[in-house]
Amino acid sequence: MSTIQDNLVSKNKQYAASFDKGHLALLPAKKYTVVTCMDARIDPAAAFGIDLGDAHVIRNAGGSARDAIRSIVISEQLLGTKEVLLVKHTGCGMLTFKNEDARGIVHKNLGDPAVKELGDLDFLPFPELEGGVKDDLAYLRGSKLVPDNITLSGWVYEVETSKP
Amino acid sequence: MSTIQDNLVSKNKQYAASFDKGHLALLPAKKYTVVTCMDARIDPAAAFGIDLGDAHVIRNAGGSARDAIRSIVISEQLLGTKEVLLVKHTGCGMLTFKNEDARGIVHKNLGDPAVKELGDLDFLPFPELEGGVKDDLAYLRGSKLVPDNITLSGWVYEVETSKP
Repeated sequence: MSTIQDNLVSKNKQYAASFDKGHLALLPAKKYTVVTCMDARIDPAAAFGIDLGDAHVIRNAGGSARDAIRSIVISEQLLGTKEVLLVKHTGCGMLTFKNEDARGIVHKNLGDPAVKELGDLDFLPFPELEGGVKDDLAYLRGSKLVPDNITLSGWVYEVETSKP
Repeated sequence: MSTIQDNLVSKNKQYAASFDKGHLALLPAKKYTVVTCMDARIDPAAAFGIDLGDAHVIRNAGGSARDAIRSIVISEQLLGTKEVLLVKHTGCGMLTFKNEDARGIVHKNLGDPAVKELGDLDFLPFPELEGGVKDDLAYLRGSKLVPDNITLSGWVYEVETSKP
């Protein structure tokens, strides 16, 4: 096993030794969904106060609602959640490049076959943080897949202070 | 604000009061990525031993590698990660339905415009857990977007015991 895999196994032993939540149900107890970034500086459970079993947590590069739509539909239509909190954050990597930059890096590092596999993939960068939150909320509000009875809100988390 | 939004704000105040990690860098310190499910019963940081700042955490319905490919490419090609741990789990909701079931529920609940918006969206359910992990690993191994120098591993997390 790699060092990283060893870390998972050894740290998990400590976690499992005092674990007493094996009875929790599949459906989130508090019926909500958090969509946020994959960024390493965010611990959603701790920072946003999500107790185990309470909420779905969807994470991707940038906390993109568009990228998350499959998971959001499953969360609200199949698994009963009623509210979505969208949380983007300061210092996001998605603010630092454009689609053509990302495609250029893939081409340089991995060559033509990789670019071909990308097809028309949108990396979904966004040039400005508040605007990114607003755009994603507008997308969800306009989507027929997110009915009006789903409560939506948008947030900016500061990785420097840990505050929303 | 909704009760859920109030919860985020009040719990975050406690978190922020003792927060001392505002100096962490954008690039994950331990250069790895965890892909896992949005399931409410999983707390990746605690269960998998991920310290703040160490790893990207991507989460979606089922912990799908296919659904996560945009984020995985950004993680390894733009943000320097070198290893991906794919973690699916027992009792996953994605084991309980097929694409046609999900489409039927969307149609029943939200009508024709929502189904039209779905287009050919694949909900990416999988009928069997170990097979789901193997399929996703095979997808990543076969992808030109994931070069051979990226270490890959697949895991099953037991939500009943918290063990991998």
